[in-house]
Order: sequence, then C-alpha cells, then structure tokens
Amino acid sequence: MNMKQLSTEPYKGTRDFYPADMRLQNYIFSTMRSVTEKYGYQEYTASIIEETDLYRAKTGEEIVGEQTYSFTDRGDRDITLRPEMTPTVARMVANKRRKLVFPVRWYSIPNCFRYERPQRGRLREFWQLNVDILGVDNIFADSEVIDMAYRIMTTFGADPNSFIIKINNRKLMNELYADILRLDDDQSHRLSKLIDKKNKMTSDEFEKESQAIITTSYDVFKKFIQINTVESLSNMFPNSPAAREVIEVMNILKTNGITNTAFDPTLMRGFDYYTGVVFEVFDTHPTNNRAMFGGGRYDNLVDLFGVESVPAFGFGMGDVTMQDYLETYNLVPNLTSTRDLTLCTLDESSVVFAMNLAAELRKQSIAVAVDYSNRKIGNKIKSAEKDGSQYVICIGEEELKNGTYVIKNLAESSEEKVMGIEGVIERIKTK
Amino acid sequence: MNMKQLSTEPYKGTRDFYPADMRLQNYIFSTMRSVTEKYGYQEYTASIIEETDLYRAKTGEEIVGEQTYSFTDRGDRDITLRPEMTPTVARMVANKRRKLVFPVRWYSIPNCFRYERPQRGRLREFWQLNVDILGVDNIFADSEVIDMAYRIMTTFGADPNSFIIKINNRKLMNELYADILRLDDDQSHRLSKLIDKKNKMTSDEFEKESQAIITTSYDVFKKFIQINTVESLSNMFPNSPAAREVIEVMNILKTNGITNTAFDPTLMRGFDYYTGVVFEVFDTHPTNNRAMFGGGRYDNLVDLFGVESVPAFGFGMGDVTMQDYLETYNLVPNLTSTRDLTLCTLDESSVVFAMNLAAELRKQSIAVAVDYSNRKIGNKIKSAEKDGSQYVICIGEEELKNGTYVIKNLAESSEEKVMGIEGVIERIKTK
Repeated sequence: MNMKQLSTEPYKGTRDFYPADMRLQNYIFSTMRSVTEKYGYQEYTASIIEETDLYRAKTGEEIVGEQTYSFTDRGDRDITLRPEMTPTVARMVANKRRKLVFPVRWYSIPNCFRYERPQRGRLREFWQLNVDILGVDNIFADSEVIDMAYRIMTTFGADPNSFIIKINNRKLMNELYADILRLDDDQSHRLSKLIDKKNKMTSDEFEKESQAIITTSYDVFKKFIQINTVESLSNMFPNSPAAREVIEVMNILKTNGITNTAFDPTLMRGFDYYTGVVFEVFDTHPTNNRAMFGGGRYDNLVDLFGVESVPAFGFGMGDVTMQDYLETYNLVPNLTSTRDLTLCTLDESSVVFAMNLAAELRKQSIAVAVDYSNRKIGNKIKSAEKDGSQYVICIGEEELKNGTYVIKNLAESSEEKVMGIEGVIERIKTK
Repeated sequence: MNMKQLSTEPYKGTRDFYPADMRLQNYIFSTMRSVTEKYGYQEYTASIIEETDLYRAKTGEEIVGEQTYSFTDRGDRDITLRPEMTPTVARMVANKRRKLVFPVRWYSIPNCFRYERPQRGRLREFWQLNVDILGVDNIFADSEVIDMAYRIMTTFGADPNSFIIKINNRKLMNELYADILRLDDDQSHRLSKLIDKKNKMTSDEFEKESQAIITTSYDVFKKFIQINTVESLSNMFPNSPAAREVIEVMNILKTNGITNTAFDPTLMRGFDYYTGVVFEVFDTHPTNNRAMFGGGRYDNLVDLFGVESVPAFGFGMGDVTMQDYLETYNLVPNLTSTRDLTLCTLDESSVVFAMNLAAELRKQSIAVAVDYSNRKIGNKIKSAEKDGSQYVICIGEEELKNGTYVIKNLAESSEEKVMGIEGVIERIKTK
C-alpha cells in the first residue's frame, strides 16, 4: 500500500473534463461532425499508439526530435503517441489501397500528444478535427476542403470579418527557390524555415538572415515576400500554374460567398509533407491575431508505404484553439444537462416505488434519476437544481397511496399537480 | 529520409476503424450513451495519460507490474496510459470534493491500454463504458447500476435468457474469511485469488490448493463454495447483513422485471479496491460461456487522496466484448452511411455549378458530396453506390441549362426527373 498522498491533479498539460467541460467539448465536436457529414465525409479513427517509424519520415524534425511521446513497449517496439493524425490517414489508406472507394472523404476527431510547455491555446494533449479527401489532385478538392473549414467557422457563429483564410502554394515557393533564386535543397529548406518564423523577427533580422541564404535575385525575393493582392501575384507570375491554382481556389470560394481570403507569400505550414496549396485560418482579433488552424495538399505521403501515389488534401482543427476562439467572441451557447427529472424520495419505503416509476418514465425517453440518498428533502431538491435537472417530483407515502404527483419546474419555480404517470409524461414532453 | 518500407498495419493489439468499423463503434457507444443518460448520468472524461502513482495503490499487482504502458516523459515524470478508468474517477471526485453535487452520477467511454497477448475478446487497446454513482452507500445505488447494466444489454437487443447477472459481496467473503475460517490478511488474499481462478482448475486441484490455505472449518468453506440459490445463502447466513444485501439487491431488481440473476460465491472480480456488492454479466451461450463485464462497490478509493471518504458503485463494459456478443447473437443492425446524395459531374465546366448546388442543399441539412474526379461517369456512380450514398444526380451541360435533374435512387434502382433545387430537396426529404 502506497502511503504517500496521491495528487488529484491531471497530468501536466492535460485536462479533466467534468460534465460542464464535457458538454462544451461535445458541442464543439458535434458542430464539427454536423458540417463534415453534410459534405459527405465519413468518420474513421485509429489507435493513439503508432510505431515511431511512422513519424520519422515526414512529420518534421522539431516534432519528432523534441515533442513526441515516444517510448519502448514491453516487447521492445518503438512506439509513439500520435502527435498528429495525417501519417495515420496515409497509413490506413495505403493499407486498403485496392479496396477503398476513391475519392475517399474521411474525418476523425482524435486526441494527439506533443511534449510542449503548456500555454494559452497550446496543451500537451489536444483533440483535433482532421478532414481529408484522398484520390483527387485538382483544385476543386482544395476548394471544397477550405470551403468546409469556412463553414465550420460560421456554423460556430463566427462572423466572417473575425477571421481570414490565408493561402499559399508550396509549388509556387519551389518555383521561386529553384527557377528564380537558384537555391539548392538545403538552402530552400533553410529559407522555408526562416520565412515560417518571419513574424517572430524584426524586419532587419529577417533581411539579414535571408540575405545570408539567397545569393541571386534577392530583389525579386524581397518583392515576392511583400505581395499582398491577387493582382500583384498574377503580375509577378503571369505564366505560373502554381500561382493560377491559388487564384482559382480563391475564385471558386468566392462563387460560394467566401471572400475573406488572401494570398500570403509567408505562409509555410510546419509539416514537411505539403506539396501544393496550403492554407491557414487566422483570427483577426486586434489583441489576439494568430493562426488558428490550417492544412494543405500532400500528394506524396501515401507513397511512403510503397504503394501507388494517392493525392490528398486535408486540414486539422484543434479543440483548444477553437474553445479559446468561441470564448473570445462569446460564441459558447448555453449548454444544459441532459437530465429531465429527479425523483426525490421522502423516506426509505418509497424508494422501490420511485425506482419503478423511473423505469416506466425511461421507456418514454425521459431522462430521470432517483435521489434516494439519506439527506433532507430540501437538500435533495437543491442538488437536483444544481445538477441541471429541469423538473423535480417528491415521492412519499401520499404519492404511493394516491398516484398524484406535484411536478416542480425548477427553471420557472412553478408547481403543478398531475394525475398518474401519464400526467407526468405529458407535462414533461410538452415542456 | 527513411528508406525502409513503412508498415501499413496498426500497432499490435490495436485496431484501425475504417468508416464501416466506426459506424459499428459509434452504434455501440450511442446505445450505451442513450441508456446511461436516461438514468440521469452525465458524461465526463480525462486524459489517457495519468501519473503512474495513481495505479500503484489499488489497481492490483498483475496489471501494474506486467500490463501497464508505463514510461518516463521528457521531464522525468513517471506516467502510464490508463489501464482502467476507476482511479481517474476517484481522483477527479477527490479534486472537486467540496464543489460537486452528490450523488454524482457520471459516465465516460474512455479507451484504455493493457499490455497483453491479443486474443478473442481481448486487445491491448479497448474502449470501456464506465458508469459510476458516488456519494450513496446504500443498496439502492447498487441496484440502480446493475439495473442499468441490464437495460444496456436489452437495449442492444439481448434476450435476457442469453445472459445472467452473477452477484456476490466482498463483505460476505470477509465475514467468511475472518469469522468462520479464521484467516489472516495474507491467507484471505491468497484464497481470493485462488477462488478467482477456480473455473480454470480441476476440482481436485482447487480442493488441494484451498486446503493448503484453510486450516479451520474447511467443510464450511466447501459448503459455501457450492451455494447456488438465495435460499441456501439465507440458510447458511441467516443473520449476515452482507448476505441480506445480496438478497435485497436481487429483490429490487425483480420488482423491475430483472430475474436473470444469481448469487455466485466464486465471483471475486480482479481489482483489489472492491468493498461490497460485486457483479458480473455472463454470456450463457453454450460454446461461449464467459464473463463479459462487471463492477461493484468501492467505498475506500477516494480516501486515497487524503479527503473524506466517498462511497461509490460502478461498472465497466468493454467495446471488444460487446461487439463479439452482438455478432454472436446477430444483433448488429444494418448501419448505413450518413451521405444522402452524390453529385457526379460530367465535365469540368459543371464542377463549380455542382459545388454551388451542393452548398444550397447542405443548408437544407442534406449530406451531399460532389464527385469531380477525372473518371468516367459510370465509375463515379459505382463509387457513390459503394460509398453508401442513397441518391445520385449527374450534372452536365443540360442540367446547367435547364435546371432539371434526374435523381437516381441507388437502393431502389429507380429514377425520377425533378424541377430545380426545390424538387431535389423535396424528393430527398420525403424519402
């Protein structure tokens, strides 16, 4: 027996979800689900444990080297708690490559782990809606998925003025790196990482560090990095298919009423596996301007498993960020308990009667609990109210004898006398 | 870049849930939820990572010593992937002891990990409905929770003749050990473990090993272990409150129509933390007779955290066992895709039109996907059917021009021509 006092706190960077927290989490998840299912996406999931090799190839050095929960199991396998879901999707699609119906439209809301210093909007454990379409390599797929990200935001009640969808294209960056700046792979990789950190540096620092990498056409790079309209993108890259993809995606979104989009040449996305259009949704709140979530095209991830290539586009939307956003903009609805009724017994001889009554009411889909605890009736009624029960009925000798019940509506502080179980059902069902 | 070919298999003992698997899993979970919520239980959850200390005290030697996924994080904390949920419930209740409204009625469907040899009905990762009532130490709570376990079974369509609820009481065992057999703590513990394994031994082996522990009144033990009716229990323990508890729980269940119950003196349950009534639901199938799930009273678990004692009763019901059971008895319903309609484009110039039409249909809560992949129309229709889409509309030049659509009902192989988007909505909504 361990005599040291145990901590009652959750593990650092994780959360306990008490019923009120769970209701909010369930609200967030069910809103995400309702939108993705309307787009014809089907839910899938997998284990949180994956073999570590899955992440070594493409997830990115920072995450695998410093942020994964990796360990060795009792059978000497190297395993990792997934830091993200995309490698799992690619693995599952590769596994059933010949049996699946393409295009595959899938979604999942897995939890993921990253070993980080917990801070606002970032925890060690988070849940993340993952939406992916696999088997289509055109910009309609890109547009559909970005459209869906927008609809999830507005379904949560977000004002389209409160966020902006920034778009870039990895192919465009590759054109710039190879054809204009004449960088090799290593230089390109270093420049990408630098651009990714641009907003965290001063202009001078960024200029100095980028000049250290770029030796040819630095002026073109400087002009590129400042593009902030579709017109200037088009002017600078009149014949680039990559630039055209960005512009067409924005045009398709516009036909569906989505105009809060912008080309952003500094948008990189952290993962190494992106190959085409990438996007990020930014909160435009003046004091909280930041990237909330994003995604992009990854056409070469399924190949890693030695099967034919499967083009793909997807995004991940985290619960922690979304909850922060909803709270910042007062978008959390009033979420009530699922309990309709509490039967409070006045004495021990009424308990079995109350339990039988509860059983009958449940057959009518009424959510009912019996409070047979050994406490005063006033305390039982208070508990029922705190628990979010909408109605209370006290059950004692008289109720057993007469079969009449007084229903208290706790929300309205009103009372009504009804006859028999039918009266109770009618009263609650017509609320 | 890792050049070794990556495995597409899930980690040993875990499962990938493709959409069809996920629908079954969601069906199992939503059935569990619907019943527990009707009893007024509220959902909670917590992280799968807990500090290892949480399990050292009471989970039981076999699990902690040999079966946990325990490791050290990058900050040198000893952490474990939860092998069960009950210690977490106790921790969470202890943490908010002063703020919670008692009785606490909670449920959760967490995943848990145990390092075991995967076999039928047993995997390394499983999900488990956990139902707990805390703050009530009477047999009404015991009865309510066992009642709920029964209702979950019947809501799944289980015939009450296909399972039996076996009941015992740890207090009765303690009376037997201390007052009659005069065993000390160590002997009692060894005898409990032996009884737990009784069904895996021959009668002779069991007799030999139990005689090695019991030195006084072995004949009483032998008689006890053979009790199989409430009458003989009552005759053997006429004045025992523990025996009365078992009998009363069975009587209360009977008033609610639950008669497939039996006292079982060999029912032990694995965890060390049980203190009173324990129960197990057994599948009575002739070729698959086995314990499916169970639970019991644990009044001393919350104390471990140095707070006032909170009596509790709960059970855990695993998804793997439940799925086996449903399949054995042909109780899995026909679970269909959530997609209503697929719009198949005939050419690229119809795609944006189809995407806009889809957007309008989604506003009417119709789940619709657009197939704009670069394939023949016949293949697109086949894919829609395989994906479980109920309807298909082909969109080409004519549809753009005339605004009339031919809706194919894939399930019925019928077609119907409708006018405009209103026609489409009406046809699908009145299916």
